[in-house]
Amino acid sequence: MKNTKKMIDINEISKLAKLIRYYILISTTNAGSGHPTSSLSAVELMTVLLFGGFFRYKVADPSFCNNDRLIFSKGHAAPLLYSLWTAAGAIKTEELLTLRKFKSRLEGHPTYRFPYAEAATGSLGQGLSIGLGMALNARCIDILPYNTFVLLGDSEMSEGSQWEAIQLASHYKLGNLIGIIDVNGLGQRGETLYGKNTSEYEKRISAFGWKTLTIDGHNISEIADAYKEAFKATEEPVMIIAATLKGKGFSIFEDKNGWHGKTLSKEQAEIAVKELGEIDKDIRGKIAEPEIIEPAVQKIDFEEIKVEDNNISTRKSYGIALVNIFSKFSSMVVLDAEVSNSTFSDIFKEKIPSRFFEMFIAEQNMVGVALGLSLRNKIPFISTFAAFLTRAFDQIRMSRYSNANIKFAGSHAGVSIGEDGVSQMGLEDIAMFRTMPDSVVLYPCDSISTMKLVEKAARHFGNVYIRTTRMDTSLVYSSDEDFVIGGSKVLKESKKDIASVITAGITVHEALRAYEELKKEGIFIKVIDLYCIKPLDKKTINIAAAQTKFILTVEDHYAEGGLGEAVISALEAPCKFKILAVRKIPLSGKPSELLNYEEISKDSIIREVKKIKSDLKIES
Amino acid sequence: MKNTKKMIDINEISKLAKLIRYYILISTTNAGSGHPTSSLSAVELMTVLLFGGFFRYKVADPSFCNNDRLIFSKGHAAPLLYSLWTAAGAIKTEELLTLRKFKSRLEGHPTYRFPYAEAATGSLGQGLSIGLGMALNARCIDILPYNTFVLLGDSEMSEGSQWEAIQLASHYKLGNLIGIIDVNGLGQRGETLYGKNTSEYEKRISAFGWKTLTIDGHNISEIADAYKEAFKATEEPVMIIAATLKGKGFSIFEDKNGWHGKTLSKEQAEIAVKELGEIDKDIRGKIAEPEIIEPAVQKIDFEEIKVEDNNISTRKSYGIALVNIFSKFSSMVVLDAEVSNSTFSDIFKEKIPSRFFEMFIAEQNMVGVALGLSLRNKIPFISTFAAFLTRAFDQIRMSRYSNANIKFAGSHAGVSIGEDGVSQMGLEDIAMFRTMPDSVVLYPCDSISTMKLVEKAARHFGNVYIRTTRMDTSLVYSSDEDFVIGGSKVLKESKKDIASVITAGITVHEALRAYEELKKEGIFIKVIDLYCIKPLDKKTINIAAAQTKFILTVEDHYAEGGLGEAVISALEAPCKFKILAVRKIPLSGKPSELLNYEEISKDSIIREVKKIKSDLKIES
Repeated sequence: MKNTKKMIDINEISKLAKLIRYYILISTTNAGSGHPTSSLSAVELMTVLLFGGFFRYKVADPSFCNNDRLIFSKGHAAPLLYSLWTAAGAIKTEELLTLRKFKSRLEGHPTYRFPYAEAATGSLGQGLSIGLGMALNARCIDILPYNTFVLLGDSEMSEGSQWEAIQLASHYKLGNLIGIIDVNGLGQRGETLYGKNTSEYEKRISAFGWKTLTIDGHNISEIADAYKEAFKATEEPVMIIAATLKGKGFSIFEDKNGWHGKTLSKEQAEIAVKELGEIDKDIRGKIAEPEIIEPAVQKIDFEEIKVEDNNISTRKSYGIALVNIFSKFSSMVVLDAEVSNSTFSDIFKEKIPSRFFEMFIAEQNMVGVALGLSLRNKIPFISTFAAFLTRAFDQIRMSRYSNANIKFAGSHAGVSIGEDGVSQMGLEDIAMFRTMPDSVVLYPCDSISTMKLVEKAARHFGNVYIRTTRMDTSLVYSSDEDFVIGGSKVLKESKKDIASVITAGITVHEALRAYEELKKEGIFIKVIDLYCIKPLDKKTINIAAAQTKFILTVEDHYAEGGLGEAVISALEAPCKFKILAVRKIPLSGKPSELLNYEEISKDSIIREVKKIKSDLKIES
Repeated sequence: MKNTKKMIDINEISKLAKLIRYYILISTTNAGSGHPTSSLSAVELMTVLLFGGFFRYKVADPSFCNNDRLIFSKGHAAPLLYSLWTAAGAIKTEELLTLRKFKSRLEGHPTYRFPYAEAATGSLGQGLSIGLGMALNARCIDILPYNTFVLLGDSEMSEGSQWEAIQLASHYKLGNLIGIIDVNGLGQRGETLYGKNTSEYEKRISAFGWKTLTIDGHNISEIADAYKEAFKATEEPVMIIAATLKGKGFSIFEDKNGWHGKTLSKEQAEIAVKELGEIDKDIRGKIAEPEIIEPAVQKIDFEEIKVEDNNISTRKSYGIALVNIFSKFSSMVVLDAEVSNSTFSDIFKEKIPSRFFEMFIAEQNMVGVALGLSLRNKIPFISTFAAFLTRAFDQIRMSRYSNANIKFAGSHAGVSIGEDGVSQMGLEDIAMFRTMPDSVVLYPCDSISTMKLVEKAARHFGNVYIRTTRMDTSLVYSSDEDFVIGGSKVLKESKKDIASVITAGITVHEALRAYEELKKEGIFIKVIDLYCIKPLDKKTINIAAAQTKFILTVEDHYAEGGLGEAVISALEAPCKFKILAVRKIPLSGKPSELLNYEEISKDSIIREVKKIKSDLKIES
């Protein structure tokens, strides 16, 4: 269902564009910082879109499922975004003047706090991937006729992530995705890579299978025609490449270099505003109403997987769990970066193919797509090797500021992957995911706990990271064990414990082996499976610290930002401790050789515990 | 200077290709893991290159400045790389059979431990950027005629980083960069994005301004002709797009799906080897000698910058320091991701333009280029906002395994940037750079310490991160102060100190203000400037802990993996502590408002110290 409106009122659009220019100017001048020039170049492009009858949106209900979606990938054009919604009557002029003030919803770059910002942006080159996720949702999941528009800066087209999105959008034939590049030719510090040469964008983007439309981005009729033309596409994503002038409308900075992120003083603004001529400050633009329609309800038949033997790897358990929890979470979507036979998300792909989408080897775009899906109320589970999730750290970080609900699974954690060597080992993933506000970081040690925690991850709203192990592991838990986010399990304890070994994942097995050997020598340790590294079970940790007076942490991860630092920084009373972690650059070798080499194996734990015992003797 | 050899000995190349196939098979079968099929598809492409007279390299001296460079971007084809050098006589067959064994130089994916691996690879989509750095070095710095070749997998072409490299190579007209895509059509889990459709690559890559040559990747003459043709390019980078068969040469897996990363059993290998026919195991390939020529010595005249007033931001001090240390480090190169007027690397650009290269907004490629330059003995200083360095975490991580010597500068650290909001704030950068083995993490608080530490960074071999602040800061140090990597400064101390406040960067100023206010009330604190967060000055920290019994850390960074966790995990004896860090999602606002909001300001420090004092009273 494409919009069929034929004519737009050029006079009205011009008046609105003038008002929006005025808003951009006064709001940034009032704030004393911001990006007026980058906002001004896209005024006509956005005014025609929103108020020319092309964009369909229930202003009273930003979350409405069939609203068109508009993402400002060039997030620094936030003053334009806020001005548009002021001109739409959605926010008041007084609020517009809170731009960039402490606790205002109108932040320097859009975040989830502004309801008309479809996604948080400001780190460039991310909006197209997010839009792709929303367009994919419309086409393949919700089966809704809404369109997704992404306003792009020309400078940000040099981000590789853009080309990941461009290549995938044509692969999935997303004719409902429309990008608009505001080619003002000036980046932050001078001319962009291709300057005003719109043909350079045209050539490259059309080579990737997109329909391209090159226009004058300040000509209202041309813009309207471009949207009409764009709506004719069904299987080709469309890129409108618009030649514009940075700072358009005000001679002080129009098309001039050196004005990026600079605002006018009150005096300069007063003079500049006069160039606009008469401004109708009471005019409000009308946004077309979307079709009232509900998402398709898909009946997906599938067979749950019966697991005969649970002595399997946690990565495989992850794949099985995806299938087995699907009946409870019908909004699940699974994405993978071309390693589904390693992460075992291919188990889901095989059983529920309509909810599996191949993202190919392009992790940044995968996270962006997941964010787009998440913002359209899906629960995306995305997977690749833990090491390769580092590729998308910027997208991961930014997703939080869109209030994302993404489940990240990183397989092949740590040196225990063995022979493939260090490039394939996730050794920074715990640190990376811990930095994210309110994130959940899970690291199960066996099949049962993995399956239960995958379900808990789906139930929890927010970003969750699940760390899985390559090799098969034996069962630690029985099938009736319960796991909670923020929990841990005391696996071994006695009144004679001289230390608490706190660990997770693969090294739980090392700790349990150490326990058995030490026990034979009459040495007792508490063993805690910290399957949830964030939020941390501070209570259990502090009780253990009080009881045993020594905390020994063990992890198959670099020491920095890992489980050990998380545990030690949560101690509420002084306590002795030691952190066993990966501290040498790992090599290729057998898993057992590498665990030993890095001193995180059973033998290292035994050695440390014996040191603790001998120190105790000396002290007593 | 291009190679002009006209004829190659097809018979000899065939024999060598056969031997190399044999080596790939026996080494992977012996290892029991690895990627024989991905290696086999590129055998002719690499055999012709190395032994057909095209590649010029002093086998006895891998570090020779005018050697051609060959990067295996598809690092999983490591068995081919090792087999090639075995066939070249550089390593013995016995060593080849140590593939993937513990402590062997022949790791599962190439690392710096194998001298003929130009760079560590294995995380896909990174080799072309590294090659670009080496090609840029040849053209613009060392002025040497060597060529840089990059063997690429077809699957990895979906990584956005490839397109960043592709766009920049044509921008810099690097006709000395030759990519070779091994289009075997099969990825890890099935068909690649474009399968065997070589025209899809041709279309896209030529749109980016490259010369493309599409050939049969198993036809020795066609391959030789392609290299000859490639050598004719002067200003266009060249991509050879080669149609190949995965697993070529052995019917058991040739062109068959499901064989990625799978090896043959001894029995299967024995049968397979017979398909090769007679193998001449004594034949060795000869690699052409490079021209013996030294790098150009460039006389670069520039004027040092006199700083009148040092009450400037640390980011600006970074820019000034780059210029002022250049006379001591003539191999310096400065790269920036289109924000040089924010990071202040534009100060260097203005003074020493021949050593400044604009990387545009493409951080992944920037790190790859820096690695390539570093591996050609340059000292690259690269900069962008600290937040946007997260974009390149995978490249940063991998660079360590190439023994990189890169200086990363991240500006706009923390909430103290103010109004621009959270998307622009570096809040995870300390955690990220701390994870890297042997990394140095510097966070100076004033202009003097910044300038001194930039020089120390240049002098130190290895990866160094320098964190800078947006706003101007007053001087803490005098110009005769010395700073060392691994050091810290005790700024305030007395015998009456009730706590040690350990901090760095912007919050040093908050701590000093807190000190002054507390002193007026007769409360004394030790204040330590931990300008080097890694390696950590454990000695000073532990002395402070012993003296004051309470450690209070303060940082403008998320709590996880930051300065606080670094300090606390370095305590050698139990000690009370508290970590003040960013714990709420930051907003837009004035720096002071945000420092207060996050409870890392002077007031928060005073509040915490008073709590410590009141607890002390209760205890006594």
